[in-house]
Amino acid sequence: MSNKLDDFISLAHGNGGRFMRQLIDDIFLQSFGADPNQVQKDAVHVPLPAGNIMVTTDGFTVKPLEFPGGNIGSLAVHGTLNDLAVAGAKPLYLTLSVFIEEGFSTNTLRRIIGSMAQHAKQNDVTIVAGDTKVLPRGEANGLYFSMTGLGLCNPQLQLDMNNIQAGDSILVSGPVGDHGIAVMLAREEFGLQGNIQSDSASVTVLAEALYSIDGLRFMRDPTRGGIATVMHEITQVIQRSIQLDETQIPVRDEVQSVCSMLGYDPLYLACEGRIVAVVASKDADRVLSIWRSLPNGNEARIIGSVLQESYAEVILKTELGGERFLEELEDDPLPRIC
Amino acid sequence: MSNKLDDFISLAHGNGGRFMRQLIDDIFLQSFGADPNQVQKDAVHVPLPAGNIMVTTDGFTVKPLEFPGGNIGSLAVHGTLNDLAVAGAKPLYLTLSVFIEEGFSTNTLRRIIGSMAQHAKQNDVTIVAGDTKVLPRGEANGLYFSMTGLGLCNPQLQLDMNNIQAGDSILVSGPVGDHGIAVMLAREEFGLQGNIQSDSASVTVLAEALYSIDGLRFMRDPTRGGIATVMHEITQVIQRSIQLDETQIPVRDEVQSVCSMLGYDPLYLACEGRIVAVVASKDADRVLSIWRSLPNGNEARIIGSVLQESYAEVILKTELGGERFLEELEDDPLPRIC
Repeated sequence: MSNKLDDFISLAHGNGGRFMRQLIDDIFLQSFGADPNQVQKDAVHVPLPAGNIMVTTDGFTVKPLEFPGGNIGSLAVHGTLNDLAVAGAKPLYLTLSVFIEEGFSTNTLRRIIGSMAQHAKQNDVTIVAGDTKVLPRGEANGLYFSMTGLGLCNPQLQLDMNNIQAGDSILVSGPVGDHGIAVMLAREEFGLQGNIQSDSASVTVLAEALYSIDGLRFMRDPTRGGIATVMHEITQVIQRSIQLDETQIPVRDEVQSVCSMLGYDPLYLACEGRIVAVVASKDADRVLSIWRSLPNGNEARIIGSVLQESYAEVILKTELGGERFLEELEDDPLPRIC
Repeated sequence: MSNKLDDFISLAHGNGGRFMRQLIDDIFLQSFGADPNQVQKDAVHVPLPAGNIMVTTDGFTVKPLEFPGGNIGSLAVHGTLNDLAVAGAKPLYLTLSVFIEEGFSTNTLRRIIGSMAQHAKQNDVTIVAGDTKVLPRGEANGLYFSMTGLGLCNPQLQLDMNNIQAGDSILVSGPVGDHGIAVMLAREEFGLQGNIQSDSASVTVLAEALYSIDGLRFMRDPTRGGIATVMHEITQVIQRSIQLDETQIPVRDEVQSVCSMLGYDPLYLACEGRIVAVVASKDADRVLSIWRSLPNGNEARIIGSVLQESYAEVILKTELGGERFLEELEDDPLPRIC
């Protein structure tokens, strides 16, 4: 009976017995620096401060698992933190559910869990509870995560799509589509190469910087479906139209080139480290200057506004001076990039 | 553009656009009776009472998805509630992360999510947040869930393996192995048939009934790895041996027959509606009579005790009067039954 973890995950690593204990000790405990006593528990106590507690949950199935600028582990941490931050909550605790395919490399798992632990630590959150399931070969594509986050929200801060009013300004904190294109190029299915890095990052600093802005209505991190999908969700809820100005939406040249070649629209591509904010127009310039003074915010732009019209369309003012409707996403432009 | 949900899940149901909104509206919103406004949010506020908040998370990958006595949806609810209940916490909120394989039947999904919603309601917990990912055909086996639960714990109740002392009694709330065998027979791989139902159920009533017992040290729901694995975890933490009395461990005749035919040991099979409790020996009879007066507790038994010996083995006193060691689980006796 060797005490060294095997090179590849087997079904026995998920059966609750000795191999599973070894996997958890060697990879999860070591990476997270967790208290071994806590690991034996079915449920753990989370010391929560008084206030409004917010919860979020997300699945992560990105392919490939590692890509320029991140991996499924860092992505899970950022995605969960960002959902809390844009809802006005300071992230406190994370829980992690892991699905591993039989035959998966333990070295890759160790590297990804290590990266996850590092990004959690950098952002001052603790992974307090977890679970691991091993799936038979062919019943998963390597590794999936589900992550749940708990955060503390200032009760005065009532961010809600329903707060949005005609005349409000729409801002984005940085270029869109980097994550989508970085992941797509990493798949090497298209024979294209590039230097685009995923924008995957925590937006907590960018989000918190706006909490004190009186005219802040709503924030969202534009992941699946990109900024076009966020705009559609808003128009459907508030029953007003939105106009975006194509010349103002920041898109990196390289992202635009790849999109042009492959027929994608960057406005529908996932970002994993950007915020779309809707603010009273009086506060738009202030938000812009706050964001531009922060790391990851220097390319922020005011990209559009909420119209009086109640036909609830998303209108793009094009570079050529025309107008076109941005349709709601139907078929998948680029599956599984978040 | 039809507004009727397709018969089968496609990748577009996971892309953040119109099809995904339709899926969420038609299946998740309808089943959970959720507020559509909440569904648009990245994170939701959970009103938590003052006290010790406990959190648990689990993945669910049972195969087949539906089996006598339950399905992956009811199992997820019970599994999550039970982890909180045995830790001394009253379950309050659940979050749900869904992984669906492309081509999955929307009717089956509706049935399973409906069952999940019904069991959550019966147990007075609310599913407050969720996420759905659709995986390409061949990258999942139908449907996986991850569920996180939040519960409120009485701060006076300090249940912990480390509390366990030599001389303590070990009880189980009902027959072991029903779930494992029910799921195995439902797979129809062995050409065996039977009437065994999974024991999948909420143990909250059985657990709460013991919270006021002064000598209650520790509880666990014996899922993956069965009661033998719980015993091994205890011996490793407290560094004392445990003796179980084979004649006292309740195993249904039909479960025993199937185990004998296939060479399984029921002590390693998953239960999904049982509790193993360790209590001071002075309280053992009282716990037994409390459990036996409750639904699902009428077959409870005192099955063993904690020994003085520090060699940390699990010893089974056999029906024939001999003794044998129960080894820690190595290879998988029956994969993916929880």
